[in-house]
Amino acid sequence: MDPVTAAASFALDRDTAVTRTGEGRFDAVITDGWGALGAGPNGGYVLGICLRALAEVLPLPDPLVVSASFVRRSTPGPATVRTDVVRVGRRVATGRAVLEQDGEAIVAATATFADLGAAEGRTLELGTPPDLPPAEECVDVMEGLSLPGVTIAERYHYRMRGRPGWAVGAPSGTPSAELWVRFADERPIDALALPVVADGMAPVVMDLPGVVGSSTMDLTVHVRARPAPGWLACRVQTRHVRNGYHEEDLELWDATGVLVAQSRQLALLREV
Amino acid sequence: MDPVTAAASFALDRDTAVTRTGEGRFDAVITDGWGALGAGPNGGYVLGICLRALAEVLPLPDPLVVSASFVRRSTPGPATVRTDVVRVGRRVATGRAVLEQDGEAIVAATATFADLGAAEGRTLELGTPPDLPPAEECVDVMEGLSLPGVTIAERYHYRMRGRPGWAVGAPSGTPSAELWVRFADERPIDALALPVVADGMAPVVMDLPGVVGSSTMDLTVHVRARPAPGWLACRVQTRHVRNGYHEEDLELWDATGVLVAQSRQLALLREV
Repeated sequence: MDPVTAAASFALDRDTAVTRTGEGRFDAVITDGWGALGAGPNGGYVLGICLRALAEVLPLPDPLVVSASFVRRSTPGPATVRTDVVRVGRRVATGRAVLEQDGEAIVAATATFADLGAAEGRTLELGTPPDLPPAEECVDVMEGLSLPGVTIAERYHYRMRGRPGWAVGAPSGTPSAELWVRFADERPIDALALPVVADGMAPVVMDLPGVVGSSTMDLTVHVRARPAPGWLACRVQTRHVRNGYHEEDLELWDATGVLVAQSRQLALLREV
Repeated sequence: MDPVTAAASFALDRDTAVTRTGEGRFDAVITDGWGALGAGPNGGYVLGICLRALAEVLPLPDPLVVSASFVRRSTPGPATVRTDVVRVGRRVATGRAVLEQDGEAIVAATATFADLGAAEGRTLELGTPPDLPPAEECVDVMEGLSLPGVTIAERYHYRMRGRPGWAVGAPSGTPSAELWVRFADERPIDALALPVVADGMAPVVMDLPGVVGSSTMDLTVHVRARPAPGWLACRVQTRHVRNGYHEEDLELWDATGVLVAQSRQLALLREV
């Protein structure tokens, strides 16, 4: 399959496509295929549109650090992305993007791109990947769940040791999880997709009684390596909830045991 | 002491002062009083100038989330800050700033401000503050150290259980630390100062043999509460070094045991 055909065949590529309309300006369409729980289109997905635009204006292939402020809820429909290049260096290049709908800012993102294939230097890994059985031996988190409007659940496959408490009506009280994740259409998870995937999981605070969701205010993703093919093992936890504000920390490890991304978001509890 | 006199008497306020010169534009002077190890002015300090400018254009008092990309090394001397307001809501307001010197971008920052005094909602703390003896019983990290040009060491007081390995020529191999920190002139650490302080410590990777420093590429700070007066207890660690790139995670706890900020940076090792 040639690259163009391949790209068109995956939901992520189709739904984050951008069309250049001027100097640093792009048109896009936010689809209703990535809807999150009671929160409109998933933030990571909308960020994916910003990253597609930034990839067009920066001369290096891989996002290395991405930060995004989600200032308004998006709605399915047309959007525009304005980008500006902050600096292009030999090894890294930084740009900013604002995604707007109806003239109002929805997401403001900053990203530094690099060539992760060319990175070299000291490596020291003090962490360990999640201790999960093979994905094939795990349970499908979404099986039997009816979540009207949560179309994002059709974009991903999630596998865990057992069903999370929130999914069976018995929140565990422990806001942490380990799980496997991949795209449902088996689109390879490349560096550009990692920031999208990092916001593609159900918030672990849903395992706190009375919490029905979490609204991402700000998301930062460090991309550390291009993932090997296959499932990603994900470790997520929230440790500090204060006045409803909480962080969610996430690690993504590839099938060869390499940490490929870390993310942290600041989010606000949604309670019953 | 009235607020104006008080502000003028503290190094941080004096050295991060901004003067409005136009719509969202400010002049500032980067001083040589916050020089870091072989790296020019400390990034957190330069970010502090951006935050002073953003505080002028946003109608809420406290930074809640701050992200900054450090794209070029700054030099002591004049700087300008261009700000733009992304969104002003009832509860939070978001703005962006670019600090430039000689027409070149040095730092691009995005910050969401809030009123931390008005925050209310669920609180659940699963973490614990660093287990440190009182600051008065700890040792002065900098005592007897001669670090030419490292003027930032005159801005802070640091106290630890014992001298860190790097400070006594015997790197421990363990890139983590717990320490007390405050401003040397006892300026109260308010919410606006927390992102500055979060980048005010020696990088823990200096406890890896052969590492002489760390260049911050990107810094994200979540401010969780206005600190109580006194020392802050700090926990810092690096767990994942890959091709020289590494994260540094930091928690700041106030004297009453409240987590007041979390930060994460992506940085690049500087080796001998």
